[in-house]
Amino acid sequence: MITGKNYIGNKLSAKGSKTYTTFNPQLNKENEFSFVEATPEEIDQAVLQAKNAYAEFKEVSGKRKAEFLNAIADGILALDDSLVKTYCSETGLPEGRAMGERGRTVGQLRSFAELVKEGSWVEASIDSAIPNRTPAPKPDLRKLLIPLGPVVVFGASNFPLAYSTAGGDTAAALAAGCPVIVKSHPMHAGTGELVASAIVKAAEKTNMPNGVFSNLNSSGIEVGVALVQHPSVKAVGFTGSIRGGRALFDLASQREEPIPVFAEMGSVNPVVILPDAVQNRGAALANTYAGSITLGTGQFCTNPGLLLGIKGEALTSFIKNLSDAIIKIEPSCMLHPNIIGAYESNRRKAVAQKGLQVVADYQSDVQTNYARQTVSTVEGKTFLENTTLHQEVFGPYSIVVQCEDVDQLEQIISKLEGQLTGTIIADDSELSRYPRIVSALQNRVGRLIYNGVPTGVEVCPSMHHGGPYPSSTDSRFTAVGIHSIKRWVRPMSYQDWPDSQLPDALKDSNPLGIIRLVNNGLTSDKL
Amino acid sequence: MITGKNYIGNKLSAKGSKTYTTFNPQLNKENEFSFVEATPEEIDQAVLQAKNAYAEFKEVSGKRKAEFLNAIADGILALDDSLVKTYCSETGLPEGRAMGERGRTVGQLRSFAELVKEGSWVEASIDSAIPNRTPAPKPDLRKLLIPLGPVVVFGASNFPLAYSTAGGDTAAALAAGCPVIVKSHPMHAGTGELVASAIVKAAEKTNMPNGVFSNLNSSGIEVGVALVQHPSVKAVGFTGSIRGGRALFDLASQREEPIPVFAEMGSVNPVVILPDAVQNRGAALANTYAGSITLGTGQFCTNPGLLLGIKGEALTSFIKNLSDAIIKIEPSCMLHPNIIGAYESNRRKAVAQKGLQVVADYQSDVQTNYARQTVSTVEGKTFLENTTLHQEVFGPYSIVVQCEDVDQLEQIISKLEGQLTGTIIADDSELSRYPRIVSALQNRVGRLIYNGVPTGVEVCPSMHHGGPYPSSTDSRFTAVGIHSIKRWVRPMSYQDWPDSQLPDALKDSNPLGIIRLVNNGLTSDKL
Repeated sequence: MITGKNYIGNKLSAKGSKTYTTFNPQLNKENEFSFVEATPEEIDQAVLQAKNAYAEFKEVSGKRKAEFLNAIADGILALDDSLVKTYCSETGLPEGRAMGERGRTVGQLRSFAELVKEGSWVEASIDSAIPNRTPAPKPDLRKLLIPLGPVVVFGASNFPLAYSTAGGDTAAALAAGCPVIVKSHPMHAGTGELVASAIVKAAEKTNMPNGVFSNLNSSGIEVGVALVQHPSVKAVGFTGSIRGGRALFDLASQREEPIPVFAEMGSVNPVVILPDAVQNRGAALANTYAGSITLGTGQFCTNPGLLLGIKGEALTSFIKNLSDAIIKIEPSCMLHPNIIGAYESNRRKAVAQKGLQVVADYQSDVQTNYARQTVSTVEGKTFLENTTLHQEVFGPYSIVVQCEDVDQLEQIISKLEGQLTGTIIADDSELSRYPRIVSALQNRVGRLIYNGVPTGVEVCPSMHHGGPYPSSTDSRFTAVGIHSIKRWVRPMSYQDWPDSQLPDALKDSNPLGIIRLVNNGLTSDKL
Repeated sequence: MITGKNYIGNKLSAKGSKTYTTFNPQLNKENEFSFVEATPEEIDQAVLQAKNAYAEFKEVSGKRKAEFLNAIADGILALDDSLVKTYCSETGLPEGRAMGERGRTVGQLRSFAELVKEGSWVEASIDSAIPNRTPAPKPDLRKLLIPLGPVVVFGASNFPLAYSTAGGDTAAALAAGCPVIVKSHPMHAGTGELVASAIVKAAEKTNMPNGVFSNLNSSGIEVGVALVQHPSVKAVGFTGSIRGGRALFDLASQREEPIPVFAEMGSVNPVVILPDAVQNRGAALANTYAGSITLGTGQFCTNPGLLLGIKGEALTSFIKNLSDAIIKIEPSCMLHPNIIGAYESNRRKAVAQKGLQVVADYQSDVQTNYARQTVSTVEGKTFLENTTLHQEVFGPYSIVVQCEDVDQLEQIISKLEGQLTGTIIADDSELSRYPRIVSALQNRVGRLIYNGVPTGVEVCPSMHHGGPYPSSTDSRFTAVGIHSIKRWVRPMSYQDWPDSQLPDALKDSNPLGIIRLVNNGLTSDKL
């Protein structure tokens, strides 16, 4: 049941007077529940409880953390219809998407449960003492990863389950041993509260310390600012706009004790279509890309917003095919009137730029909150000179740049801002003929894709979701997959520490049976 | 031979008009050579060459990078007497220390050579495609670590070899595949130039791209500021004061594209002496700690500047023993008049604090630039209330805090700023009786030491040298040991990339024979 209250640890709380509602973009009207914004006192309470919970939670075994994470996954599934319906009413997304995203969320929780149950993720390392070494004895040194402390998670508007309340950031932080305070996303506060209730029940059921999780309602920026500035908060996860992510990064960097902010932000995900490919299969590519550009109404951070090709007949005909294909696709609903408002405004700004030509613009009337898919094209020189054209238009919009030649293509790639992904579409043997294009693209992205589309982010260890700024604030960490746990930990060394007092992961007998680096060799043997 | 010029890539250059000299603190006079400060034009050239070198250097094999690193080590040894003499003349440190530090530096270079020659450090990971998976096929994904780009290294005044020109930061960055621009430390510019000449010769000998290394002279802050703000610089390494490190961190965070700064800064390295230990072996401990506090004239980031015990007869007698032992130690020379000036000023400020009692103060006349070792003591309550007493006094100074009880001891530990190390001195079974003390100390430090001294930082994989702010700007990375290479890299994923075009580390056949995570299991097998 949705109460509209905050969770301060395991307790519902609504001390504030400021309320807000969520919005159903399909029906174009407000939803029935009203949410009470967290007060400064409630924020303090949540952080204090998280700080106290940390002392206990950091010592909880991997096996017990796995029980907790699996109990959250079970609890989310148990919410069943009520969750799916709330999700759809707060996002305008179809039921199939809700079910798919729920599956992804549950899958992420279970994969972190597996990871911490197995235990080798702590990167345990042991160097034995050499007491008779000269000129000085070598001490015994052992190292492992420990949790940073309370983490604040800002949910993503476009992933109300997989990157919000119990999404990737929360799952990874809890797995690491960090208490989590979620700044609930105002656009899906009901979905958020339902998921929060599942987390709180799971925490109680598996005897986790009270305060290991809190969920704070917030319609403006005040709650988020107070959380990021709180001295007891030790790290921040965020998925959203460049403006929002950068503001949090700046706040965190300016603290007396700066803390890491992992913000996964904007990206236009450049797609380079090499000449042979566009010549030989331009029509098929056009269909594939019309689908990728409009998938989920273009509301993905990996949406292909920039296609780069070499000027010529083949590219002209690709543009024609792409335009034809994209206007045949029925428009679909965006998440919220604010999102469609931003889309319309950014789209208008983009297409008003000098030299830009709109080649496809869905013309018929569309329902309120539905987005018109749009494709534009521009000369390489014009694109190079006008960085406004490099900016993301969040929604079903893409621009095709017609480069003069390969040199200009390389120059354009080098001038792009950092990106989550870069795609190369090529025919057999074509890739090897453009090493400088590949090298330039690699410098700007976190993931290179060959003959595919950037939409669709597989959850697996080899996925890197993150890239040079501003696609993320820290290109060194992924937001997707089990290695995202590394965002929430730091190494700790023990020197000459008595075996009985060491964490299990570092004991001589290797009671956890994990893989460790022992005197420079990986092994699961005891010492 | 020392020319006083900058190295812009492989070329000596001295376009500026501002010059400075280094200083011999033992002789209390300036050294003979004069150094020409780098101009803005030279800074630009060095960065541009580094950027261009990066395109080639990032593709250089581990085997060839190992040859380069070993050639640097050989070159440093070949400098022989000229290096040792210059080192001593610019630091006042004895020849034995110079030889020891040279050994450490060469050892670090060779251990990074081993690491990259073996190759598994790139954390290669492969998830195979499942083309017939429903509802969507699983793509082939592969991931490895790639270098960030040009790195700027600021050398440490107190480690002219091991943490300067070819020190840990430079060795790790070159091993990672990042070109390095060193902002030479003005206090040992001659030592720096000699080492730079060895690096440049090694780069030429092993055919590394010109620009893979530059060395810029600088007596003020301008050169460093320009380097950190340069858009083509991608990361910064620094060892020095909190003020200096924080200033660089702020500059880097405020860039349009923020970049990581790994600053290893101040620390008082708290040492907790538990009651049984001080009771049973206070006299021996006093001798050990008198040695640790004065080692290298106290000029180590791991110097024990804060001893914490529980009030009582045993602690009183420990303080007496420590005082007696420390004033028996002959004063020694500090690195530079500026350093001794800062020591005297910080020491005076500390001992002038209300409630502080100086218990040992070397009284005889000392030579110019020599430091008087000092021990003071204070009540726990006074220490808690006055954070000036928590600040580092860089030099042979330590304060003993007499806590009322264990609760106050825990409270004091919790209120400390972040530290590189924390030490617990305990008798058998005593450690297990103070779990809250251990937990509190763990939250504030990067390395826990049992019954030892914090001075002496072993170079091995299990060493973590770094800790919560302000001991370092990023507690997640170590500045010592092979894992320090992780500061200079980011992950890169390849999706459905043709095998022949993948980096060797990710090819099916595993031509490098490295250990990889393949479909969730570690193996060196081919696919």
